[in-house]
Amino acid sequence: MEAVRARHGAADLEQTVSELAAAFGNRLVTSRAVREQHANTVTWVAAEPPDAVVYPQSTEDVQRAVRICARHRAPIIPFGMGTSFEGSVNAPFGGVCLDFKDMNRILAVHTEDLDCVIEPGVTRKQLNAHLRDQGLFFPVDPGADASLGGMASTRASGTNTVRYGTMKDNVLAMKVLLPNGELMSTSRRARKSSAGYDLTRLIIGAEGTLGIITELTLKLHGIPEAISAGVCPFPSIKSACDAAITAIQSGIPVARVELLDEVQVRACNADAKLGLPETPMLFLEFHGSDAGVAEQSERFGDIARELGGGPFEWATKSEDRTRLWEARHHAFWAARSFRPGANIVVTDVCVPISRLAECVTETKRDIEQSSIVAPILGHVGDGNFHAFVLVMMDDADEVARAKAFIERVAERALAMEGTCTGEHGIGEGKKHFLVPEHGSAAVEIMRAIKHAIDQNGIMNPGKIV
Amino acid sequence: MEAVRARHGAADLEQTVSELAAAFGNRLVTSRAVREQHANTVTWVAAEPPDAVVYPQSTEDVQRAVRICARHRAPIIPFGMGTSFEGSVNAPFGGVCLDFKDMNRILAVHTEDLDCVIEPGVTRKQLNAHLRDQGLFFPVDPGADASLGGMASTRASGTNTVRYGTMKDNVLAMKVLLPNGELMSTSRRARKSSAGYDLTRLIIGAEGTLGIITELTLKLHGIPEAISAGVCPFPSIKSACDAAITAIQSGIPVARVELLDEVQVRACNADAKLGLPETPMLFLEFHGSDAGVAEQSERFGDIARELGGGPFEWATKSEDRTRLWEARHHAFWAARSFRPGANIVVTDVCVPISRLAECVTETKRDIEQSSIVAPILGHVGDGNFHAFVLVMMDDADEVARAKAFIERVAERALAMEGTCTGEHGIGEGKKHFLVPEHGSAAVEIMRAIKHAIDQNGIMNPGKIV
Repeated sequence: MEAVRARHGAADLEQTVSELAAAFGNRLVTSRAVREQHANTVTWVAAEPPDAVVYPQSTEDVQRAVRICARHRAPIIPFGMGTSFEGSVNAPFGGVCLDFKDMNRILAVHTEDLDCVIEPGVTRKQLNAHLRDQGLFFPVDPGADASLGGMASTRASGTNTVRYGTMKDNVLAMKVLLPNGELMSTSRRARKSSAGYDLTRLIIGAEGTLGIITELTLKLHGIPEAISAGVCPFPSIKSACDAAITAIQSGIPVARVELLDEVQVRACNADAKLGLPETPMLFLEFHGSDAGVAEQSERFGDIARELGGGPFEWATKSEDRTRLWEARHHAFWAARSFRPGANIVVTDVCVPISRLAECVTETKRDIEQSSIVAPILGHVGDGNFHAFVLVMMDDADEVARAKAFIERVAERALAMEGTCTGEHGIGEGKKHFLVPEHGSAAVEIMRAIKHAIDQNGIMNPGKIV
Repeated sequence: MEAVRARHGAADLEQTVSELAAAFGNRLVTSRAVREQHANTVTWVAAEPPDAVVYPQSTEDVQRAVRICARHRAPIIPFGMGTSFEGSVNAPFGGVCLDFKDMNRILAVHTEDLDCVIEPGVTRKQLNAHLRDQGLFFPVDPGADASLGGMASTRASGTNTVRYGTMKDNVLAMKVLLPNGELMSTSRRARKSSAGYDLTRLIIGAEGTLGIITELTLKLHGIPEAISAGVCPFPSIKSACDAAITAIQSGIPVARVELLDEVQVRACNADAKLGLPETPMLFLEFHGSDAGVAEQSERFGDIARELGGGPFEWATKSEDRTRLWEARHHAFWAARSFRPGANIVVTDVCVPISRLAECVTETKRDIEQSSIVAPILGHVGDGNFHAFVLVMMDDADEVARAKAFIERVAERALAMEGTCTGEHGIGEGKKHFLVPEHGSAAVEIMRAIKHAIDQNGIMNPGKIV
């Protein structure tokens, strides 16, 4: 469904597209099908296609495109793999989508420095396949095979953030095309710096509203000598959350700890033939030396047992681990096929971990009372969890109940000192939570920054502020 | 020595001080001695005292002071413990210093969430003394017992950053008094968030030029079950750096790894009667379980031996460790007493770790050729090192040689993709390196942000941009 388009200032879109066509030839596409593929496609946020899609092949291409758009005040929307849940790639005012699929080169890997330099269209899996032979990996893992430029733009995180951090912790520097057509380097390759304002962190999570990322320098990590992984059943959400918290508090350097509620376990069982008991479940992974992962796994098993959970069955064999995490990574699709014909909307709240069990438990009660279907999956080490709300779009009453539920989930998290979005971003879908979450003084500062950098509002307009 | 003071726009300082005196009574001080204590005192950057010092006791006090200053466009300079090396606390345009010594309350410790809420005047040691009984600690350790507000403002780091990160990684949220007199919350207590621009990271490292921090929420860590520490001699700077890099690359989670060159070892020997061989030396610390730290220490010993270093002697006994790290933390003062009567200036470059050995070695050659005295100490896990340049200020020729050397150290680091300051900040002393380091596009963006937030330039003017 294409939404009604608002007018964007003084933009001359026709002239923009014609100049871009002259500059980019067949690397500019205006067909309806391609434009629609470049609007929101993953969730129920209405699709708002751009006027044209350009496929840059270099920073110079991006600069040319930005300069043409800037001259005509035409909106520019950067596009990675289109996996955004919040309509971040939508074009509510029309404009030009820059699709980075051809800017997917790995420019350098510095093994001694544990970093690499890449173009923004490189995906997470592509990078890790490239690094494997060198014994290195990039840890941030949102599940989807997203582009790293997109992941930086939404401040993405995922399953092993509890140990390795989010994108904000794993990007050393970026090159960014500014709205004025100039190229900015946000930082240098040194591991740390106190030299001026942290422009790297300002661009991470800005969802393309301040500039377009054309290059990233990422931190890498050595592939651990040993990895163990396993699943651990619990009698309740509370005991599962408590086990995760206790493990973290006792200093076990958990690499991943994911909560699946019994509904999500059922969905994964159906999808991947896991044969797991349909009760709240933690999926865990530990990284270290052979002795280290054995010690960590055993200590976690003890904690689980004391809290009424277990047995914790773990394995270090690669095949067993792969099967388990493939099932986990497929959870979104498993949830989707759990209710054929349903549309999916994903909530993304994050609360202090002491409030997590309470927040999940109340949310599950809310799901029941709202008569909706919504399996739950949580990155419990961070206090972040998702409800995959499965909605039959032709049932207006169900849509209304789902919408009200989604609002309540965010309000509940805010009331517990949490955030409306742990890792998906604000996009279009969560703009109305920005003031309730940060207060008006902070949002005014965000607006002042946006205006100072992008006076004409051409950078991904209609998102965040 | 008091520098000649520049005029700051339309500031009416006399009226400001008189209104502040009415509001704060004897918590406003204008005596020359107190004002001079609140200028730069640690390095050779000339002292520039403020017109008055105010001692706020609450966020409301800060708000009152900021509103009075804002009305008269008077500069405001926040002051923690005065340990800045770059003149960040100086008042080149006069104005009002806010000394946070009375805002030193620990407001909350959330043990389950591994975080705490504090006022900005709390010092690192004060916080850790408070946390010890709860089995928790705050890791960032710049050596000096700095205030945590000041550490956030300079994006400080220190000895165990290689494992626990810098201030940017360990501050969850802040309250900040803006130049318009409003109070802003930068974020919430959740471990992560993708909700809008990262205002937390924007304030960290801003050296008080965008607003005044009045509260911080900090991440905490569990005190490790076991700690081992020791020293390891090496035949050369190169072999010591290579051992540190190899340890990190092989995934040993080193908690601290500090390089002392033979001159610094000599200074520490003289100061603390360590009796160490006067050769390049690594000081190391490992955190984990009993078995874990033993394994890490032994693996490091093997690496050192293969690179011609060692023996690596390590201990887990608390007294032995304490003596060692006290000596290390006293390195600045040891260096100072190494040349009685000398003034000290500290360089702070940070380069990608693959370039570290080369950068330190060239810098040592430069020290020799410049005929100056400058022991070297490095946080080698981060690629960051300091030369403690000891200068007799009455020897104009030596001062000139030292100045030229200090410029060359920064230029050398920049040529190696590094930064002029890893952890001390830009302050007044390094402003001329900002464009060479970041390029003019980035510095223009910093200026635009500064101007958007602080139109009248009242927040710590004359620093960074």
